[in-house]
Amino acid sequence: MNMYELIDRKKNNGELKRKELYYIVNGYTNGDIPDYQMAAFLMAVCFNGMSEEETYNFTMAMKESGDELDLSGIKGAVVDKHSTGGVGDKVSLVMGPMVAACGVPVAKMSGRGLGYTGGTIDKLESFTGFNTSPSVHEFIKNVNDIGISWAGQTANLAPADKKIYALRDVTATVDSMPLIASSIMSKKLAAGAAGIVLDVTYGTGAFMENPKEAEMLARLMIKIGRRQGKKMAAVITDMNEPLGCAVGNAIEVIEAINVLNGKGPDSVLEVALVLGSHMLLLNGRCSSLSEAKALLLNTIKNGSALKKMAQWVERQGGNGEMVYNTELFKKAAIEKQILYTGKNGESENRGMAEYVSAINGKAVGMAVTRLGGGRTGKDDIIDLSVGVRLLKKTGDIVKKGDILGVIYANTMEAAGEAEDMVLKAYSFSDKKVENTSVIFAEIY
Amino acid sequence: MNMYELIDRKKNNGELKRKELYYIVNGYTNGDIPDYQMAAFLMAVCFNGMSEEETYNFTMAMKESGDELDLSGIKGAVVDKHSTGGVGDKVSLVMGPMVAACGVPVAKMSGRGLGYTGGTIDKLESFTGFNTSPSVHEFIKNVNDIGISWAGQTANLAPADKKIYALRDVTATVDSMPLIASSIMSKKLAAGAAGIVLDVTYGTGAFMENPKEAEMLARLMIKIGRRQGKKMAAVITDMNEPLGCAVGNAIEVIEAINVLNGKGPDSVLEVALVLGSHMLLLNGRCSSLSEAKALLLNTIKNGSALKKMAQWVERQGGNGEMVYNTELFKKAAIEKQILYTGKNGESENRGMAEYVSAINGKAVGMAVTRLGGGRTGKDDIIDLSVGVRLLKKTGDIVKKGDILGVIYANTMEAAGEAEDMVLKAYSFSDKKVENTSVIFAEIY
Repeated sequence: MNMYELIDRKKNNGELKRKELYYIVNGYTNGDIPDYQMAAFLMAVCFNGMSEEETYNFTMAMKESGDELDLSGIKGAVVDKHSTGGVGDKVSLVMGPMVAACGVPVAKMSGRGLGYTGGTIDKLESFTGFNTSPSVHEFIKNVNDIGISWAGQTANLAPADKKIYALRDVTATVDSMPLIASSIMSKKLAAGAAGIVLDVTYGTGAFMENPKEAEMLARLMIKIGRRQGKKMAAVITDMNEPLGCAVGNAIEVIEAINVLNGKGPDSVLEVALVLGSHMLLLNGRCSSLSEAKALLLNTIKNGSALKKMAQWVERQGGNGEMVYNTELFKKAAIEKQILYTGKNGESENRGMAEYVSAINGKAVGMAVTRLGGGRTGKDDIIDLSVGVRLLKKTGDIVKKGDILGVIYANTMEAAGEAEDMVLKAYSFSDKKVENTSVIFAEIY
Repeated sequence: MNMYELIDRKKNNGELKRKELYYIVNGYTNGDIPDYQMAAFLMAVCFNGMSEEETYNFTMAMKESGDELDLSGIKGAVVDKHSTGGVGDKVSLVMGPMVAACGVPVAKMSGRGLGYTGGTIDKLESFTGFNTSPSVHEFIKNVNDIGISWAGQTANLAPADKKIYALRDVTATVDSMPLIASSIMSKKLAAGAAGIVLDVTYGTGAFMENPKEAEMLARLMIKIGRRQGKKMAAVITDMNEPLGCAVGNAIEVIEAINVLNGKGPDSVLEVALVLGSHMLLLNGRCSSLSEAKALLLNTIKNGSALKKMAQWVERQGGNGEMVYNTELFKKAAIEKQILYTGKNGESENRGMAEYVSAINGKAVGMAVTRLGGGRTGKDDIIDLSVGVRLLKKTGDIVKKGDILGVIYANTMEAAGEAEDMVLKAYSFSDKKVENTSVIFAEIY
């Protein structure tokens, strides 16, 4: 086999066979195929795509490139959840304890944040002492003992994907549906769950621009998973504006705790309920989504979800007290209000109502990165205390002098720059704007 | 400036500005931009192309990356000639002495062969003692003294193109019109001639598949050259079958000598006359193509072209005697005839006439490479004595037992393999096949 010929075939829209895709993945991972040939191949894939068969085989080759977790030691069917990413997405932190409180095992591997989107592992480290690197043995034991555990780089899952993703990241070859699907599914399949619920996001700052593309990506990943015998479901969610109000690490954890306390925001609860109910369905705990939703809501009403979160934090070495007293989270030194100065800089409102018509999630994420709360390089140490709280969301009425949001910063300079960035992220309109449901579709 | 952003822009079909293209070319040449980013960029160009403005700026950046020859020391306007390549193309060797014999200076830089196409510099080395690396001073002096000189790697012309071409060659990004045009024109413009005649080939084994594409490439290169104040013309030639009969190094030189002796083949003479007459026109030596053609033909009739070739070979250290006695060229040890065994392996001809309907030039070139007459790596030492002579060409009637051609080889094993390859290169038909002119169009 010859990499030149395989690049040329993909460039000319030809089909690559299973053994050829394994040759590419394994050859690149072990260094036989140089970066420049892989980069040319990936760019050709961006233009000509991959067939379903090619995408499946590419996924399998990456999945088999490293460790594959054996979760058979866990009692009950483990259902994993994956989100394609969004700014302000703290759903895992809400849904995990709720699902575990319903008696369904939660055994989840997560990543750190890179660029303008956050990562659950970083957020969990806001709990003082939380150990995000349990051994595989501890990880499985936790799930069997208390029903939930979470880990970062515990196993070497899909190292081929890791190397290929790093190359895509510097060659502008990230936004390709088969490459996104195979990257996600190779890691999820290696993580060993019996079922997978996908949260496929679209909008500003998500991989997919619109719900149609997001649905195509979801259906592609569902097919790959089912072909491997996994139970699969997907939810398509709107990430045109940040989810909920808090964007940052500690402040997102606090918002998740508020949701488990029954104190909203509703949008976060809505997504957690939909994803969580599909998890209960795939696990077999419930036979209908309405039954699952009622069970999950009850974990908030009876306090069992919050209790489960505290138990989980304690088990992984963290301070569980913080779940009941969020004042214990490390605070940023500066709180700066973002004032609305009127549309188009007008000095008077002239009595007309104005509405927030959009909030660019990517721009808010970039503001948090500017504050030090996001990574620009993969080895950056981030500041967990900083962030942005959005008090006005799409559809809200605003008038001059209103507080749009709050910046949590540790330097005045960063606070000022982030304020400008967040102000630019907002759009306003004279016409009434509806704030529709975050959930666009459920596929199962 | 940021290479990631420039790759992404080209991928999304955006326009790159002059300074951005210089940044890419210079950054890649000096090593600041890594191979993998350049490979992704080149693949994006293969899909989305470049505008005329982009192609021009990319060409200029490569042209300016190394030496630029100053030919102002040469009396009269130097007109260069470039062919986009074809199997059996010995036109330069015929046209050079003819044009010089008409009093028009010929100062030409050529390359070596790579892959299945040959290079003029290799062919010239078939003359015992011929020095293909004169200094720039000697090169210019030769032209002023005898009207003609030829050089290989005398100057460091367009090193950026050299590095980029090497990358294209291993990443399947060769066949892109703007990349081909900028590669050729960067070298030709750096070579300093006042006029350039392009021989743009199409067909099996050429960059361009059909005459329409070849014409587009020609018009693109003409625009780039004229914008630099160069006099430009182009000829579109059919390279679906090898040009002439000889394919190899020494045997192509012998065929060129035969043409200068008035002993054909007609196709080679035809292309040399058309290209040569455009050179005389661009130089100002003639005011019409018919006048130029008559002048050139006269150099064959009166023997001045052959005499010029001998003088030139002597001047560059070679044995000029070989021009008058081709028995002096080094011969291959084995001559093996290729017999026609009948269409579809039929044992009898059943009285029907059969015609050669096509000869795959690339396949014949590959056969010569198998014999040792072509390079597979750029540092290979090649055997100048081997080759293939095609006695039957497209349109010729053949019957079982006819000799299609002759293999010149130095091992029996190579001869046998090359024979099979040449046989497979031939196609036959029961229907009469016309052999049309090699010249498809002239653009000036």
